[in-house]
Amino acid sequence: MIEVVGLDGDDTLWRNEEYFAVSQEMFRAIVEPYLDRDLDVDGELASRERANLELFGYGIKGFTLSMLETAIEITEGRIPVAQLQVLLDRGKEMLSHPVELLDGVADTIAALSADYRLVLVTKGDLFHQEQKVARSGLAELFWRVEIVAEKDESTYERLLARHEVEPPSFVMVGNSVRSDVLPVLAIGARAVHIPYEITWAHELAEHDGSVPTLASISQLPVWLDANRG
Amino acid sequence: MIEVVGLDGDDTLWRNEEYFAVSQEMFRAIVEPYLDRDLDVDGELASRERANLELFGYGIKGFTLSMLETAIEITEGRIPVAQLQVLLDRGKEMLSHPVELLDGVADTIAALSADYRLVLVTKGDLFHQEQKVARSGLAELFWRVEIVAEKDESTYERLLARHEVEPPSFVMVGNSVRSDVLPVLAIGARAVHIPYEITWAHELAEHDGSVPTLASISQLPVWLDANRG
Repeated sequence: MIEVVGLDGDDTLWRNEEYFAVSQEMFRAIVEPYLDRDLDVDGELASRERANLELFGYGIKGFTLSMLETAIEITEGRIPVAQLQVLLDRGKEMLSHPVELLDGVADTIAALSADYRLVLVTKGDLFHQEQKVARSGLAELFWRVEIVAEKDESTYERLLARHEVEPPSFVMVGNSVRSDVLPVLAIGARAVHIPYEITWAHELAEHDGSVPTLASISQLPVWLDANRG
Repeated sequence: MIEVVGLDGDDTLWRNEEYFAVSQEMFRAIVEPYLDRDLDVDGELASRERANLELFGYGIKGFTLSMLETAIEITEGRIPVAQLQVLLDRGKEMLSHPVELLDGVADTIAALSADYRLVLVTKGDLFHQEQKVARSGLAELFWRVEIVAEKDESTYERLLARHEVEPPSFVMVGNSVRSDVLPVLAIGARAVHIPYEITWAHELAEHDGSVPTLASISQLPVWLDANRG
């Protein structure tokens, strides 16, 4: 019997990854004139981000620092200071971006909140995620909001224990197989995958096809009704 | 009857502010050769930090971005890229710094954990604070760990409600009057102030002298015994 529905935030409830994609494109255009050889700029940035992940964690501030570091590194310091300022400004622009809910989210969350206890489970920068929740207009519809540093099995286990939720009564809904599906299945709860058009390479993972996959969050209430018991 | 003891992390359990002080000194030395007039470098950095606070929140990543931004701004772009790299590296060094417990902390927390439920209430970057808790060696002595974006009245209210702690049975212990004392008193709980030798200007505030003030955390068990009931 499903009683509690966990919902991912970024790219499940609101747009996120495409802001990073735009920044990445901008980054490429900014550094390319200062390269002295052909280079996979996206790959360089991605590998710097990956290397910094254990120091920075997820979020825009760490991404911005990784952009600055990569720009200096791959241009061997030839990038002008003014261009680094442009990257800094882009980071700030991303942080202050209004929250854009995805299609169907507002109605679906309002409807679900009448029948289920909703828990937002989102990963990344505490401060920025709290701001996004506040700006989303959805805050009051959630029973709990959990901003976590990493979405792995132990995080989900702790979270359910803290709120006294039994795994079989919990379903997690999100766009990332790696973060929203696999660790949830591993602790004996259920998961619904709602793919998003762009997925960060770091989040790419596959499930075995047995995981219910919806094209839109608008299909979630019907799925829950059919699978509640 | 005090049952639950809240403990601040930075500069109450472990060293923090002095790493920022060292960075600030470094910052001054790095930018000064590129200034074309006398300038209060510390003041410029502090005001940039303050302005960025609503976008960055607390923590080292935001501080690093503020250092970079201030360096570019006050040198009008004359700071060389290599010096910006030094500032970036300093940010990463701060993030990877080992946790240094303050004198008496390890023994005191171990002793208190036998008699009270201990809650770590720390502010700032979720990812970095979690790392610090893990590296502190104290994690298992805490009943709960709460990393929050801001320590104000509503944060403390939510926190106590979530853990079903009545305000009169809670005492918060920390070095910041602004974050650890005043909002706690305002919700009807108690607070103990343990000043630290350096306080970030942003945290400076005064209490009216009626708040118990200890010279060292080692005095906390005796104070609690005397004031428990």
